[in-house]
Amino acid sequence: MNLTIAVLTVGDELLNGEMADTNTTAIARILGGEGYRLSESLTVGDVETDIAAALCALAARRDVVIVTGGLGPTGDDLTARAAARAFGRRLVLNDEALGQIRAFFAARNEAMDPRNEKQALLPQKAAILANDRGTAPGFVLSQEKTEFFFLPGVPDEMTAILRESVLGALHRFSGGVPPRRERVLKVFGLSEVQTEERLEQVLPPGVELAFGVDFPLVHVKLRACGEEAENLLDRGELAARRALDDFIVAAGETTLAQNVARLLENTGLTLSLAESCTGGLIAKLLTDVPGSSSFFERGAVTYSNQAKQQWLGVSRKLLEEEGAVSEACALAMARGVRRAAATDLALAVTGIAGPAGGTADKPVGTVFVALVAAGYEQVQRFGFAGDRSQIRLMTACTALEWIRRIAIKHLNDGAP
Amino acid sequence: MNLTIAVLTVGDELLNGEMADTNTTAIARILGGEGYRLSESLTVGDVETDIAAALCALAARRDVVIVTGGLGPTGDDLTARAAARAFGRRLVLNDEALGQIRAFFAARNEAMDPRNEKQALLPQKAAILANDRGTAPGFVLSQEKTEFFFLPGVPDEMTAILRESVLGALHRFSGGVPPRRERVLKVFGLSEVQTEERLEQVLPPGVELAFGVDFPLVHVKLRACGEEAENLLDRGELAARRALDDFIVAAGETTLAQNVARLLENTGLTLSLAESCTGGLIAKLLTDVPGSSSFFERGAVTYSNQAKQQWLGVSRKLLEEEGAVSEACALAMARGVRRAAATDLALAVTGIAGPAGGTADKPVGTVFVALVAAGYEQVQRFGFAGDRSQIRLMTACTALEWIRRIAIKHLNDGAP
Repeated sequence: MNLTIAVLTVGDELLNGEMADTNTTAIARILGGEGYRLSESLTVGDVETDIAAALCALAARRDVVIVTGGLGPTGDDLTARAAARAFGRRLVLNDEALGQIRAFFAARNEAMDPRNEKQALLPQKAAILANDRGTAPGFVLSQEKTEFFFLPGVPDEMTAILRESVLGALHRFSGGVPPRRERVLKVFGLSEVQTEERLEQVLPPGVELAFGVDFPLVHVKLRACGEEAENLLDRGELAARRALDDFIVAAGETTLAQNVARLLENTGLTLSLAESCTGGLIAKLLTDVPGSSSFFERGAVTYSNQAKQQWLGVSRKLLEEEGAVSEACALAMARGVRRAAATDLALAVTGIAGPAGGTADKPVGTVFVALVAAGYEQVQRFGFAGDRSQIRLMTACTALEWIRRIAIKHLNDGAP
Repeated sequence: MNLTIAVLTVGDELLNGEMADTNTTAIARILGGEGYRLSESLTVGDVETDIAAALCALAARRDVVIVTGGLGPTGDDLTARAAARAFGRRLVLNDEALGQIRAFFAARNEAMDPRNEKQALLPQKAAILANDRGTAPGFVLSQEKTEFFFLPGVPDEMTAILRESVLGALHRFSGGVPPRRERVLKVFGLSEVQTEERLEQVLPPGVELAFGVDFPLVHVKLRACGEEAENLLDRGELAARRALDDFIVAAGETTLAQNVARLLENTGLTLSLAESCTGGLIAKLLTDVPGSSSFFERGAVTYSNQAKQQWLGVSRKLLEEEGAVSEACALAMARGVRRAAATDLALAVTGIAGPAGGTADKPVGTVFVALVAAGYEQVQRFGFAGDRSQIRLMTACTALEWIRRIAIKHLNDGAP
């Protein structure tokens, strides 16, 4: 059965420019990952007649409607009342909902505000959905062959109830299994077209291919349907990993930086950084990850030549003859920070992120990356396209990718 | 006249989790800034009958409908055809649209793909909206007292046409002036409640107050309507600036980091940084701004004690007796980086961003910030709440704010 699903989000703040409607996007992504596609989405303000009109219109034309927002304790939270009006039901104090709200406050040793009692005033025959993260109970109404799921607008409460209660119901409506499973592999260093070429004729029949972009990464989405979906995806992932080899830099919910951090923790390799054009971005990305102090010793953000000389030991002669944006300088920076920090690995970047500073020889986007370890040195020139922010991101991802590869090499054969 | 406005966005990718619908958010924000509120928004997929049904439903109930997406050259771009079907018009080759598309390619010395001709097939009586950024012409249809604006889905093309053509039309429908003007002041260091208290009874009558949050900043929105709006806002802004004093760290579209960068460029003051818990975040934020090399000399990301000793001259004794997370260490780090870099200003942060590493004395969120200049030293302990990412952001904004204040002091009285 091909379910038709609609999303209705409620809230003035979504229509007056105060806030982006992240809930529709999150629902589309979570459902999309399991193969459900939304037929439409709507947003209305905190106006009882507008909410009721939208509910009536959707009851006539969709199998499932997911409604978020307007379940709070204040006067402009009108969704339950609007649902009662739309479907000709009375609002009644729902004992189960009231018990859940009381339990929420009791678990926190807080007194319940009398206003929260309003959140238990729900349309007749509402079935309650558990919410242990907030005061608003979710609920379900069956109306004219349509299942209406009402969820709170707070994003983490909404997504928790969606995953815990709504997905399972959708699977039941679809005959016991989710219509589709998905795995995501994150590719760096190949364009979408190049990625697609490598995957031509390698995926087993039954595994569909889709793409997404999270600049500068390409997301490869493998999808399969039916009872055999997980087996198909296991085989598809194996084939894709073989075809894309180490252009795959992360998978699933993991980011490239998290992956690099985990690899460094596991190998015990320590790292120091010397950044010029990225201005601390690489260090920032790695130290976003909790526990990064176990491998990250230090970083230098050396914008000036003097800093490069003083902290990294880059010679004045080199800077004068080759310039700060050069292969020799990148290598000297990496050697210098490694010597100072006494780390296993040291990585340096120097380049021109723009918009100013480009020359005919070294246009904006010219970047040198260097990586050194015991008995190992690598340095390369890149010409990145894009604006300042894109050039900095491309540089940072290239740097992280180099660290990832050397850490994997270390895992595999003990070097460096 | 109070216009009722709806937005309809078209595209499968908005409903299957591939992409967030940023266009509705952008339209709501741009229109909201001028006082227009959306009555509702809808999203449908690339299905001709769904698009046509949505257009028919909206024609019956709204004054203005802004439609985005589905105007491209490929087979799944169906919006013009759906509009013709919905409103019983023929699709005709629009000469003005075709001329615009040809001019777009001519200006780029590119050959026009025959498929792009399809983009000039528009419903009868469509009035063309100029688009010099892409191939899809926007167009307007009047239908049953409703004005339909059809815009391309590419965000920068959409927002350009919205600002250049649609806003002016909305102002004309509303009687010649935008219904409301808005100014945004960005506050750091006061909560929303504290900000509101300071603004009580200081704004002139006719200036409305609203709030937004961009963690950790509070956005104060001053709004006024009618012919006198700009005068009212001038007076309102003056009063708000007096009441909030230097808790206002930026205004309008400017960020705190951009503001700090501009101040440093203007004063000619140079800066160096020593970061521990922020791991490069402060340097990253400042070097995001083009031209930051004119004032930013260097930054040290000193995660290890050894790095603090070696590059910043923090003594082993101090680290042993006071610990790396201490007032004394923050001050020594700032002094050390200033000595090495010979900058006018030097700022240091050290703290515990979590989730691990907290103690009873120094729980997660304990952060020390130090700023030194010639004849000037400031150091302070903070206890920030939140998760790792929030603690790092609070620390970075506090650091930027300290630099902003000292640069303003320098502008005002020549110190330090």
